[in-house]
Parts: sequence; structure tokens; C-alpha cells
Amino acid sequence: MLNVALLGAGRIGQVHAQSMTAGGRCTVVAVADVNTQAAQALAARIGAEARSVDAIIADPAIDAVLIATSTDTHSDLITRATAAGKAVLCEKPVDLSLERALATLKAAEATGRPVMIGFNRRFDPNFAALKAAFDAGEIGDGELLSITSFDPAPPPVDYVKVSGGLFRDMMIHDFDMACWIFGGAPARVTAHGSSLVDPAIGDAGDVDTAAVTMVWEDGRIAVIKNSRRAGYGYDQRLELLGSKGLLSAANVLENTVQKITTAGAVSAKPLHFFLERYMRAYEIEWAAFLKGVTEGTAMPVTLREGVAALACAEAAARSLAQGTTVAITPDMLG
Amino acid sequence: MLNVALLGAGRIGQVHAQSMTAGGRCTVVAVADVNTQAAQALAARIGAEARSVDAIIADPAIDAVLIATSTDTHSDLITRATAAGKAVLCEKPVDLSLERALATLKAAEATGRPVMIGFNRRFDPNFAALKAAFDAGEIGDGELLSITSFDPAPPPVDYVKVSGGLFRDMMIHDFDMACWIFGGAPARVTAHGSSLVDPAIGDAGDVDTAAVTMVWEDGRIAVIKNSRRAGYGYDQRLELLGSKGLLSAANVLENTVQKITTAGAVSAKPLHFFLERYMRAYEIEWAAFLKGVTEGTAMPVTLREGVAALACAEAAARSLAQGTTVAITPDMLG
Amino acid sequence: MLNVALLGAGRIGQVHAQSMTAGGRCTVVAVADVNTQAAQALAARIGAEARSVDAIIADPAIDAVLIATSTDTHSDLITRATAAGKAVLCEKPVDLSLERALATLKAAEATGRPVMIGFNRRFDPNFAALKAAFDAGEIGDGELLSITSFDPAPPPVDYVKVSGGLFRDMMIHDFDMACWIFGGAPARVTAHGSSLVDPAIGDAGDVDTAAVTMVWEDGRIAVIKNSRRAGYGYDQRLELLGSKGLLSAANVLENTVQKITTAGAVSAKPLHFFLERYMRAYEIEWAAFLKGVTEGTAMPVTLREGVAALACAEAAARSLAQGTTVAITPDMLG
Amino acid sequence: MLNVALLGAGRIGQVHAQSMTAGGRCTVVAVADVNTQAAQALAARIGAEARSVDAIIADPAIDAVLIATSTDTHSDLITRATAAGKAVLCEKPVDLSLERALATLKAAEATGRPVMIGFNRRFDPNFAALKAAFDAGEIGDGELLSITSFDPAPPPVDYVKVSGGLFRDMMIHDFDMACWIFGGAPARVTAHGSSLVDPAIGDAGDVDTAAVTMVWEDGRIAVIKNSRRAGYGYDQRLELLGSKGLLSAANVLENTVQKITTAGAVSAKPLHFFLERYMRAYEIEWAAFLKGVTEGTAMPVTLREGVAALACAEAAARSLAQGTTVAITPDMLG
Repeated sequence: MLNVALLGAGRIGQVHAQSMTAGGRCTVVAVADVNTQAAQALAARIGAEARSVDAIIADPAIDAVLIATSTDTHSDLITRATAAGKAVLCEKPVDLSLERALATLKAAEATGRPVMIGFNRRFDPNFAALKAAFDAGEIGDGELLSITSFDPAPPPVDYVKVSGGLFRDMMIHDFDMACWIFGGAPARVTAHGSSLVDPAIGDAGDVDTAAVTMVWEDGRIAVIKNSRRAGYGYDQRLELLGSKGLLSAANVLENTVQKITTAGAVSAKPLHFFLERYMRAYEIEWAAFLKGVTEGTAMPVTLREGVAALACAEAAARSLAQGTTVAITPDMLG
Repeated sequence: MLNVALLGAGRIGQVHAQSMTAGGRCTVVAVADVNTQAAQALAARIGAEARSVDAIIADPAIDAVLIATSTDTHSDLITRATAAGKAVLCEKPVDLSLERALATLKAAEATGRPVMIGFNRRFDPNFAALKAAFDAGEIGDGELLSITSFDPAPPPVDYVKVSGGLFRDMMIHDFDMACWIFGGAPARVTAHGSSLVDPAIGDAGDVDTAAVTMVWEDGRIAVIKNSRRAGYGYDQRLELLGSKGLLSAANVLENTVQKITTAGAVSAKPLHFFLERYMRAYEIEWAAFLKGVTEGTAMPVTLREGVAALACAEAAARSLAQGTTVAITPDMLG
Repeated sequence: MLNVALLGAGRIGQVHAQSMTAGGRCTVVAVADVNTQAAQALAARIGAEARSVDAIIADPAIDAVLIATSTDTHSDLITRATAAGKAVLCEKPVDLSLERALATLKAAEATGRPVMIGFNRRFDPNFAALKAAFDAGEIGDGELLSITSFDPAPPPVDYVKVSGGLFRDMMIHDFDMACWIFGGAPARVTAHGSSLVDPAIGDAGDVDTAAVTMVWEDGRIAVIKNSRRAGYGYDQRLELLGSKGLLSAANVLENTVQKITTAGAVSAKPLHFFLERYMRAYEIEWAAFLKGVTEGTAMPVTLREGVAALACAEAAARSLAQGTTVAITPDMLG
Repeated sequence: MLNVALLGAGRIGQVHAQSMTAGGRCTVVAVADVNTQAAQALAARIGAEARSVDAIIADPAIDAVLIATSTDTHSDLITRATAAGKAVLCEKPVDLSLERALATLKAAEATGRPVMIGFNRRFDPNFAALKAAFDAGEIGDGELLSITSFDPAPPPVDYVKVSGGLFRDMMIHDFDMACWIFGGAPARVTAHGSSLVDPAIGDAGDVDTAAVTMVWEDGRIAVIKNSRRAGYGYDQRLELLGSKGLLSAANVLENTVQKITTAGAVSAKPLHFFLERYMRAYEIEWAAFLKGVTEGTAMPVTLREGVAALACAEAAARSLAQGTTVAITPDMLG
């Protein structure tokens, strides 16, 4: 049984801690956080020790780490943990800087240690079922992919300012979904965006409503739509037109009740928050990581793929700034 | 091209007049009604003559009649029209009296002329598609049939008093649907009913909410639910469990728009009235009658089947009155 | 924190063990089973001791027991556990004999100890949302309730023979749902049933396909449909017509993916098995029991209600055997 | 009652003939077509005369014409008919040349005669209901509009070659929908397109799969997706995110039947062809035109709006050719 450590005891670290400790498939040895109280509280709750990041990385008895710290530390921690021989599951995005992410990719690949990026949506049972049906040829060749991804409410502007912007922070998931479904990376990216939800987001130099088009070298097209505020909940849908049909994955609703009165037929809203929608995905993600490390099989989401998603985000940001289409060049993919 | 006449220029007669005059597939020669003004108005609108019923029946140039007069005249008109050599399409129910309906059946069958009963729902494209899928064996053997049939609002009590009661007036459609789908007639019928919608209906000796169970000799079961008041519209659904799966036919909605807000996801209601829901069925029904008469093929709904539906209604009424299960005996089916 | 014990380490006992040990809200002290190996294995897995039922009942340190043993032991265990001062959560049905269940009710109520019956469906979030909307008056007064409950596949005939029959074993859930939603018990019950799925079930004197109608004193009607074999999964639906509208709770599907090709639009099936559909309900059920015991509030499903469901099953069995409607008399409800 | 004439007796002319002759709301005096046999056949069927276009335009007794001739004749016929004092309903698009369309706009507006462009989708009851709900403020301010419009099968390449290309021939409808819903015209248009369906379409210099993004001056964004081949039918959907919710209009399905077996739950496909989907829209369109002309109220789709849609198509074509975003300048809108 693997010995693992959790780096980061914030909200997302606590989410992962649930999966890590369920089912007795690994031993969570230690938890680290810059906030040592937070580390201690979480460690106590899951029967682990609070330690420093340095101590965890230096401990040869720890086989793997899950990095759930702030984004600006990801590259450094991936590099150090793999150098220390550990397997790594790192939260998205790899980095806000594509340049630094590329350097991390180079360093980590040199160690030969497995690194997985935590794109949780790939493990959502609905999206996974769509992908499996597509891969099985059920709708023929893929032609036109649409991704809808709306948050229930915008984050605080203070967060927006350090987030890397909508493309690196939010749409990064969708870039990964598109690359996952179509394979490889697009040839070029065109972004459009506006601040319609909260003027303060616009003042901070970011957008809150965006549409990005990605075109693959062979002509396949993916369209991603993002909004920071759907109001009615977390709207997460995929739709893929193929040469023989259409596959779609709809939202997961709060319940299956419908009420019909003279006012119409009222059904439940989509699950409101990403934790409700994706809790199961986080569990499957962790199990997939453990399985890959234990069995020595390929990581289901590689660091290289994490870099590709970031390259798309980088291209989108440039496209929006310049008002032009931006090519994804090989040097952007490492 | 057939020469046809319409007996009855009331609401349902006017509905049929639309189908009869569309597409130029027959010549509507004459219209009759006890209200001669109504007959004249409708005749003028569709380019026909207003005549008396006697004159129509006596006219050898008229090949077929559609009987849309009041229920108490159906038996007499079927008998006379077939005796005069005409093909007949008669609105449901055949009669309020099973005894009289059986006599009509005997008389009409003796003439050899085709008689069809206007059970419009058989021609609804949704129910017809369900029936076709079932007959094609797509869910194996039929086991358990459910019919939901709710009106948007109860009729005036004055109508209820002369209607023959819910079973003969409203559920007669559903009895026919059950016999159509399962074939033949049930071995026994058990009815439960209450007056929950309008106390005046209960005072008039009728029920407005009812559930009837029909059991076929081989054990197949059909459950019919009726309410005189759904409020939100005309609720017309079928569901059939077979040995290999389930077939269902849902309501037709006013439109396909959905609105999702914090209050939930709101879709359109079912079409509100039987004319909206079944206008297309009436057209197909008339075309089917014309085709049968012209080509000499079997009527898609026979008079015998109309009597069987009435026998079920009779059994249901007796069951409710007696608080027992009532058998359908061969003498009730003619 | 309550000390609890689990009586019964079979399939359903193991299901409950998951809820009992999750979240650290009580201490599971002991597990008992006639199969001592099974008790030991489960006890080891959840950190409890394997003990005899007698030892558990005799232990004053144990506050509550969950009875998940075979049905024929329920009455005796409820009686002894309450006599020993313990709170009880007992799996359905209370007993196969209404007479014995009534005696148990009398005995248990005399002790004043809380007894809850494990009708898990009341805790399903979908049915609970329907009930809450109804209780909030969203569709006015209840008039006509429909319950659809189909199993994916029939049980072995050996099980059928000792099960008490479809009404006591399977439809008991639906009787409770009907009583829960409408309140109180029906005035009379009429049952129809056939053996269409497996002739061996018929040979064993039971039915596998059934429709039961329950009528309340004030005229409200509930219709329950059961089949032992839906094939496509576990089909669990409710529909309630009220004076102002309709509430329905649909199945929970395996995923939200739809595929549209020339062959039609294909969506996922309902969750296939009761454990998938109701795992969450079992968790909520246990939490509700703990809360009731700890806070001294009323049990959300009382023993009296468990007896009422059994009275309905008894009436249905008699109705089927006699071919008549059977009244629920006050002496049947205790 | 207006006297009207139909110019063009081809497929779409015959469709309009149905609406024009139904309900007796106008007198169809004459039909013209370059194929005089086609004109005579249609005229005979609807009780009109076959005449030349010149004769129709010269006839002062004809109040209005419906132009359903080939696109290259639209501008000339609009100009001549309005100059002759007639009201005009002209099929889309106004012209393939924006320059010529602008000249036509100028000429027609100078006559003061009403000109309506036949964007039938505005009259589809589903899209109209969505628009009405949006205009009523039900989802707050519009932010992000998505239009999905897929044909069941690509047209023959010979047609593609003279069609003006996907943007002017097919997406023209969607440009109009976007402008209708958001009001006015976008500030800029970016088009992406590929030939994935039929290489011959690519060889002919056109695309068969396209995604276009339109951005309004105030930041609102519309995304249009087109494919010449969905296979499963005619896929026509709208979705609009507003500040308070989401409105969507789904496809109209062939029927409401669902079949659930071990293979999944199968529902009907969308109506397969534009005539099935939009027959009702054509009827409403014609009634709206008649009403506008008779009552002297504003046309529900103006020639100016027809030119705006063409300007969007022109911008999209340029964008695709140049690989850049193209602004819609005032001179493009007339």
C-alpha cells in the first residue's frame, strides 16, 4: 500500500483528503500547509501527521504526493517531488506561466516519475461515458465539439486579480476537455470575451463571459463558452457532432421531481456547486492515480497534457488581447 | 371519388368537416343537423347542401355518412344508414345502452356495410407509434398497461347528467385503447371512483376521479386512471410494460422552450385541449375511413370494437355501484 | 455519542454497516449474526466485536440496535430490545403475520422506547422532495396517487416461497409510501395479480405482476403497480395528481449522456439495482434515526406505520385470494 | 381582401402556395415562373392564373407579391414590385451581393412600400416563445447566445456552387436570428469553417462545418454553429444566457414515444426536414405579412434586417477568407 502525503490543506485539499482516506487503498502519512494550524487540523481529522513540505519531500518512505497548494507553487513542487522520486498528482493549472510550465515538464520528464494533472472533469461519469461512446465509434468521426461551462456566481475580484484570468483559471478545464476528446492540441485559437457580469472584473483587466474557438489542423472545430455567472447553478455540458450522430452530456439535476401546474412544468436545477457535481469525479480521479502508480501504467492525464491546456489558455489570452487568431506552435507544447 | 354526408353540425361535426373537406379526397354533398341554421351555416362554409337526415339516408348517390350527432341517435342512424347501403363512420360511444348497441351491431353486421367507430386516439401519431413498436415485438409480450387520461376541466353538471357517466362518456376512449393494445376484451373489470373535483358531479350520481383495473383471461393487467380536472391541460399518456422493456407515450407540449432560473427549470405544459392534441388524429382517422371504404379493406375500428368498449364501461359502472369485480361475459360482446 | 449494535450481517446488514460507521456519529459496538463467521468478518471490518444477540440485548451500555436479521425474527427482537430499554431501527417488514406484528406493537409501545421501521424510500431525496412540495401545498389537495415499482429481475423461487408473497415482501414499500403521502391508512384495498414473469412463481402460489387500488375514506385513490421483472433496471416512480397540479418523481438514470443517430435518441437506463438507487437513502435514514433517538423527537417512521403497511399487504393478499375488495378495519391497525 | 400573386412555383413557392390559399384571407390571383408549365400546374391547383412576371407587376389590381424565385432575381423583383406600388414578401436571402442588396434597400425604401423578408424561423412557435420570454425580461439582460443549425444532409455540389456559400445560403437564417434576438447588428464577426462532410464542397471553395462568433458593441456575444450534415435530422436549437437565467428552445421530435430496454432508453429523433419543422412557421409568416399590409403596421421582418443578415454573411465570408475578425461598418447596413 502506497504511502502518500497531501500538500495543501485548503478547500480543495480537504476535498482530496476525503478521497485519499476512503476505502483504505493507501496510507495518508502527512499533510502540509503554509498555514500550520490548517495542516494540523486536517491531519488530526484523517489520522495523519502535519509536517513541512520540505520534510515530506525529504522522506523516502513517502511514495506519492498530491499537490493542492496555491498555483504559484505547483511548478516548484512538481519539480522537487519528482526529483525526490515521488509520483505526483497536481491540481490544475500546472502554472500561470507557460514558460515555467514548460521548464517543469522538461525537469519532471527527465526524472521518469509519473505526474498526473488533476483535471477532475475527465473522471465525471457523464463526460467519461460520452468519451467512451465516442471512442467506440458510436457517432463516427468527430467534427464539431461544444463545451458549455458556466459558474453559478463570479469569484471575488481579489481572487480574479491573482487567478491568471478566466482562460488560465476557469477555461483551462475546457481546453483540457477539448484536447482530451479530440486528441492532441488545436492548430489555432480565437478568443472573444467581455465583462458583462461584474464591471469590477473588467476593471481588473479580465473578462467574465467568453467564447473561444479552437480549430484542429484537420479542420475539426471546438467551441467553448464560459460565463462566471449562470445564477441557476453550475452549468456543465458537452455536445459533440460526429459524422454519424450527436453525443451530448447534460447537467446533473438536484432531483428528478417535476411539478406541472397552470404555471408550467417545473423541474429541478443543475447541482449548484462544483463539489456537488464533481465529488464523485474526485474520488475516481484519485483511484485512477493510485492505480497508475501502483501498476506502473500511464497516467490518465499527463503533465504534458496539462501544459497543452495551458498553451491553449495562453493562446486565448493573446488572441483576446490582440484581436487576432493565435497559432499553437510546437514550442508551446514542449 | 366518394360522395359523403355529415350528420351533426355541432362542435365535433365542425371538427370533422375540416378533415372531410381537406385534400379533395371525397365530395361532401350534404350536412344535416336538428338545428337547421347550424346545418346551413356549416354547409355554406364547406360548399355542401343542408339537408334532412332522412333525405341524406334516402339519397342513393351518397356513399357514406359521418355520424356526429348526439349519442342517443347513434344506434338508430347506424342502423338506418347501413340498411340504406351506406358506409358509416360514427362518433363514440356507440350508445349509452349496451343492450341497444348490441342490437345495432346485429343489424348493421347483417347489412354487410362497413361501420367504423371514431376512436380518434388510435390515430394519434404518438399512440400509433407506441402500438406499432409493441406489435413489432420491441418489448416482447405485453404484461401491464397504464393509461392516464385527465381532462383540463370538468364539464358542466348539466352535461354530466346526460353523459352516461364518466365510464361511458370519458373512459370509453381508454377502454378502447386498452382493448386495442392488448387485443380482445378483458375477462373482468374493477372500478373505483370518487367525486373529488366537483361535489355537484357526485350529487348527480357520477364520479370525477376514477381508477379501473382490467384483467385479461391470460393474466395481463391494464390500469386506467381518469380525472375530470388536471388543471394544467389535457394529460394523455400510455405506458406498457412488456417482457423485454417499457414503452411510453408522453404528452405533446405547447412548445420546446425551457427557462432555468433560481426558481427551477420551467418547461411548457401539455397542449391544453383535445382539439389541439388530436386535430391531426381526426385527419388521419378520416383518411383511414375513406381508404377502408374505397379499397374494401377492414375498418381500422369496427362497430364490434365500439361495442366492446361500451361493455367495459357497462362493467365498470356496475362494478362501482356494487363494489365488486364484474366479469365481461360473451353475451356482452355480441 | 450513542453505542449501537447491528443485528444481522447479511447483505442488508452490510449496507447499513456502511452508514453506521460513516461520519463518526455513533459507536458501533457489536455485530451479531446466526452465522458467527459472517458476524466476525463484518465486525472485524468495522472495528466492532462479534457477539451473540442475547449478549447485545443484555448489555446496558448499548443504546440502540439496528435489526437486519431475517423477517421471522423481527417481532421477537423488537420486543426484547425495547423491553431491555433500547431504541430500535428495524428493517421492513415488521413481520409476515399481522397478528404477531400487532402484538409486537402493543408490547413495544408499552415500553415507551422509540422504534423506527426502515422504509428507506421515504429518505430517497427525490421522493422526499415530492413529499415536501406536496406538504407545502404546491399542488393543492391530493386526489390520485400512482406508484410504479418494478424490480430488474425476479428473485429465486426459493426466496419467493418464504418471502410472505409479493404484497408483504415487495409492495410493502409502496403501501408505506401511499400511507406516508396521503396520511393514515386506506379504507379499503383491492388487489389484482398474475404470474406472467416466471411460472414457477405462480406455481409457488404467488404473483409477479400486480396492481392494487387503495381508496381512502374521503375518496382519495392510490394505485400501485408492481412487477418482479422490468429488465431494464429498477423502476421506481411516483406521481400525484392534486387539485392544482401534478407532482412526479422520475427514475435516477445511470448518466446524462444522450446519443442521437438515425436509429433515434438513446439515453441511459435507470440505475439498475436498489443499492445504487437507495444507498443515499439508507445513509439519510440512519442519520434520521440517530437524530430522533439523540434528541428524543418522534421517529420519522413509526412501528405503528410499519404495522399499517403490513395491514395493507394483508388486505391485498386476502383481496387477491377472494376476488373482492377488503376493508381495513381499526383492529388491523392496532 | 388583398389580391396577391406568387412569383416562383418551385419547391418553396409551392410551400407558400399552401399558406396563401388557406383560410380565405386573400385572393391568389396569379402565379409566375420561368418554367411556364410549373406556373400553370400550380396555378391550376390553387385556382389562380399563370401569368408572366411582367404582367403581374404591371397589374394595378394586384396588391402584393410573394417572391420565391431564384436568389439572383430577388433584388430586381423587389425593386420593380415596390416601384409598381406593391407590398412584397421576399424569400431569403435578399441577394448574394451586399452591394446590390444595399441598392435595392435604397430603392425600395424610396417607394415607401412595405417589404418583408421571409425569415421563417422567427415565426416558429418555439423560437417565438423564447423571444417573447426574453423580451418580457424573464432572464434579465442577454449575454451569450448560441445557435445550433444543422441540416440533415448536404445539398448537391452543383447547388453549393451557386448558393453563395454556407454563410449566405444557410447561416443567413442564423445571422438573422441573432440580430433579431439581440437587436441591431454585431460590431464584428469572426468565422471558422472546414470541409469535413463532403470534400467536393471544399473543392468548390465552400465549407460545410462552421462556427461563427458575433460580438455586439456592448460586449454581448453570439455563437453560431452550422453543419451541412447531422444525419439524424434537422437540428435547430437556440440557447440564451441572461443575467438571471437561461432560455433554450429544443428540437421538435417526431413523436413522444420512449422505449426502455436493456439497450437503453430510445426516444424519437428531431423532425427530419425543414418543411416538417417549419410548415407552421410559414403559415404564421404569411398571416403576419397579410396583417401588416392590411393594417399598415410595421413589417415583422424588414428589408433593412434582411440586408443586415447579409452584411453578417459577407463579414463572415471575408473573415474566413482572411483569417481575421471583420468589423460590420455602418455602410454595410445601409
